[in-house]
Amino acid sequence: MDEFTYRDGSLWCEGVPLTSVADRYGTPTYVYSASTLIDHYRRFAKAFDSISPLVCFSAKALSNIHLLRLLGREGAGIDAVSGGELHRAMVAGIDPERTVLAGVGKSSDELREAVRRNIRCINVESEAEVELLSRIAREEGVRPRLAIRVNPDVAPDQRTPARTTTGTRGGKFGVDIERAAALFERAAADEALRIEGFHIHLGSPIFDPQVYAVAMDRLLALVARLEAVGHRITTLNLGGGFPAEYIDRTAPSWDDFAEVIVHRLTGFTRQGGQVIFEPGRTIAANAGILLSTVRYLKQAGDQQLAVIDAGMTHIARAAMYDSYHFMWPVQPPAEAIPSSRDVSGLDGLTTYDVVGPICESSDYLARGRSLPVLKAGAHFAIFTAGAYGMTMTSNYNSQLRPAEVLVHGDQVSLIRRRETYADLVGLELLDDGSDQGD
Amino acid sequence: MDEFTYRDGSLWCEGVPLTSVADRYGTPTYVYSASTLIDHYRRFAKAFDSISPLVCFSAKALSNIHLLRLLGREGAGIDAVSGGELHRAMVAGIDPERTVLAGVGKSSDELREAVRRNIRCINVESEAEVELLSRIAREEGVRPRLAIRVNPDVAPDQRTPARTTTGTRGGKFGVDIERAAALFERAAADEALRIEGFHIHLGSPIFDPQVYAVAMDRLLALVARLEAVGHRITTLNLGGGFPAEYIDRTAPSWDDFAEVIVHRLTGFTRQGGQVIFEPGRTIAANAGILLSTVRYLKQAGDQQLAVIDAGMTHIARAAMYDSYHFMWPVQPPAEAIPSSRDVSGLDGLTTYDVVGPICESSDYLARGRSLPVLKAGAHFAIFTAGAYGMTMTSNYNSQLRPAEVLVHGDQVSLIRRRETYADLVGLELLDDGSDQGD
Ligand SMILES: Cc1ncc(COP(=O)(O)O)c(C=O)c1O
Ligand SMILES: Cc1ncc(COP(=O)(O)O)c(C=O)c1O
Repeated sequence: MDEFTYRDGSLWCEGVPLTSVADRYGTPTYVYSASTLIDHYRRFAKAFDSISPLVCFSAKALSNIHLLRLLGREGAGIDAVSGGELHRAMVAGIDPERTVLAGVGKSSDELREAVRRNIRCINVESEAEVELLSRIAREEGVRPRLAIRVNPDVAPDQRTPARTTTGTRGGKFGVDIERAAALFERAAADEALRIEGFHIHLGSPIFDPQVYAVAMDRLLALVARLEAVGHRITTLNLGGGFPAEYIDRTAPSWDDFAEVIVHRLTGFTRQGGQVIFEPGRTIAANAGILLSTVRYLKQAGDQQLAVIDAGMTHIARAAMYDSYHFMWPVQPPAEAIPSSRDVSGLDGLTTYDVVGPICESSDYLARGRSLPVLKAGAHFAIFTAGAYGMTMTSNYNSQLRPAEVLVHGDQVSLIRRRETYADLVGLELLDDGSDQGD
Repeated sequence: MDEFTYRDGSLWCEGVPLTSVADRYGTPTYVYSASTLIDHYRRFAKAFDSISPLVCFSAKALSNIHLLRLLGREGAGIDAVSGGELHRAMVAGIDPERTVLAGVGKSSDELREAVRRNIRCINVESEAEVELLSRIAREEGVRPRLAIRVNPDVAPDQRTPARTTTGTRGGKFGVDIERAAALFERAAADEALRIEGFHIHLGSPIFDPQVYAVAMDRLLALVARLEAVGHRITTLNLGGGFPAEYIDRTAPSWDDFAEVIVHRLTGFTRQGGQVIFEPGRTIAANAGILLSTVRYLKQAGDQQLAVIDAGMTHIARAAMYDSYHFMWPVQPPAEAIPSSRDVSGLDGLTTYDVVGPICESSDYLARGRSLPVLKAGAHFAIFTAGAYGMTMTSNYNSQLRPAEVLVHGDQVSLIRRRETYADLVGLELLDDGSDQGD
């Protein structure tokens, strides 16, 4: 699952004890395992290798340029959703031929940038966007490749949070499937454009492979209908949404998904079609932890509270989606070394609410969690934090955003330095003298 | 209420048409009215002037140093909740005698900084924090003034979101009221400390003045009990939580709150006690708008969608708390100029879901909202965005955080520049060569 393991009574990332990372870089700090990230990418790609997909890692899940570069060297492309992510892909040296751009509200500058770089595919989400793209294509003298994001109206399983369910009718993403063929034909008739196919993304995380099956069958019916009237569909982008192991072995494997997906696409790929995936969470989540420190223990009513130095500004998922993260001390007592995330057999556990330092009641990392007895000053790890962790941080309460550290074997490198107080106000200190006030 | 008004068919902030701000600085941009901010601060202070409170503006609501400086010149202090906010107060020239520090998870560095600056009051939230503060005070040779944050176990009214309800039993904030007297006595016996009183904050926003009444009566009973055994209480901090006008005239006035609060405290202040308030939202919310632009209009199922350039990364409140913001085009059709936020009498309205550009389903600013017919490219204002607007922004999806602009009369100044793509990755480009990858 990942390379964060307890050894000699303490948590390690690959060949590095996390206590040494905390001592050197302080906390809260995101720590990533290069081997896990690479291994996940390779195994994901391998599960689907019979249809040779282009795997565009979804930068919204994890966007540090050093990690994008690492994945790029493995052959991954990048799924970007903004000019900022296109910029990151460029800095990370990702080939435009392996870069795709999605997003329901792309600015004309963002579209223009994608057209100029002639990226692999622009996933458009509305009639109006096709028009705008066509105008920009003419201005730039480049014929961009595009796909239409379709809303297949498929409800994911119940474990997918409503906030991250993206493919149901009336939602903001994509074009209703009953209007998609007409839009395809309009784009196909436009000489400024090269319309290649369709894009779907159903939500995140999706635990049931059948959800992909239902959506794909609708999509393939649409493809068949268009091919029957002479169009050629050469790109199908199935998006992301594959789950991560927040709890042990609760998610289906990549092979389970491949089993449902691959046979539906062999006809398409045999005719030269290109399949694209945009996995984010499934590659990155288990490749990172958030390393923190316990600041205070306190009693509140009948609850025991552990106040740690990482809150909703450092990891938003629990406060935002009520997400579950496994968390555990870096150096637990000897009888409480977890061998899996099922800790129910361990001795000496007690129940804590784990909260962050933010002045907001939703700033809970966990409620009623069984943990070893905690001590102030002890290091504490929040697991499966590699996806939608650092990318969702903020400076609310004027908190400083964490450092990011990459471990590879016994090598440790700082890949993003911790913010400073000077960084917080830097953009407010303007050259024109207006930092002197109103 | 505020100085954002429609004039000559278009929205102005004080003496400046917002179209000119959008043209000059782009969108999304936060625009603040200096006059509204100052007026709100003055009127809040005036409502309570018979008890001469120290009004410490809550920087978590709005933290731009130029705005803190503006309020500071009016006599406001600052309520900080982190070292970052203490830094902002210092840069803004706020006297430490007018600075207070709260927060359930202050680091020892943050406490040390507050002790060194000898700020007006450190609001402590647990027994363990009192111990740590005492240790730091001895090390620094300064006797810090402190108050104990008490959890009065008062439920606010139903309109206060659970996520921002902070004074109920079992919650993470403060010390249970039944343990507060013992902690006060312990701190009073500690020569390294100057314990001065108590702090409460009940939630935000609170629409019912009686909520303050109930909490204060509990607090004053605690004070009486301690005074009966010879202690002197000289500081009572009632926190913030006063509402803003998200909708017209739905919130009680400052005088309504003063009527409930003031008479309960005249005895206390006559004996030389100092009352502190920490208002944030009530001062700042109506003093700011988020100026945005419509990017696309699209149909989704039966809904009309307006996709604007501001999403949950630029203003988190709707996605995070389901908050209501009034929003309207900057240049509406002549028949749809609103004279208040009740627009039900206006002609030619239609219903939109207003969404942002973020790849996440919760990125809705409004659902089923009656609005004039919108056009792509048109400027669009999200009102009452001055509090918990800019301070909660993030770079999720590698979105750039907005610019901030201050209007005073017919003067416009940029008080925070828009982020650039270079800013996004700046902290990842490290000097030690590690920007070359793993
Ligand atoms: C269009 C698109 N593709 C890919 C992803 C990545 O999803 P996941 O991280 O679940 O793989 C998302 C997530 O929101 C998305 O919106
Ligand atoms: C301790 C404290 N004081 C003051 C405030 C400011 O609240 P408001 O903006 O509602 O006035 C808050 C808000 O969270 C707070 O936690």
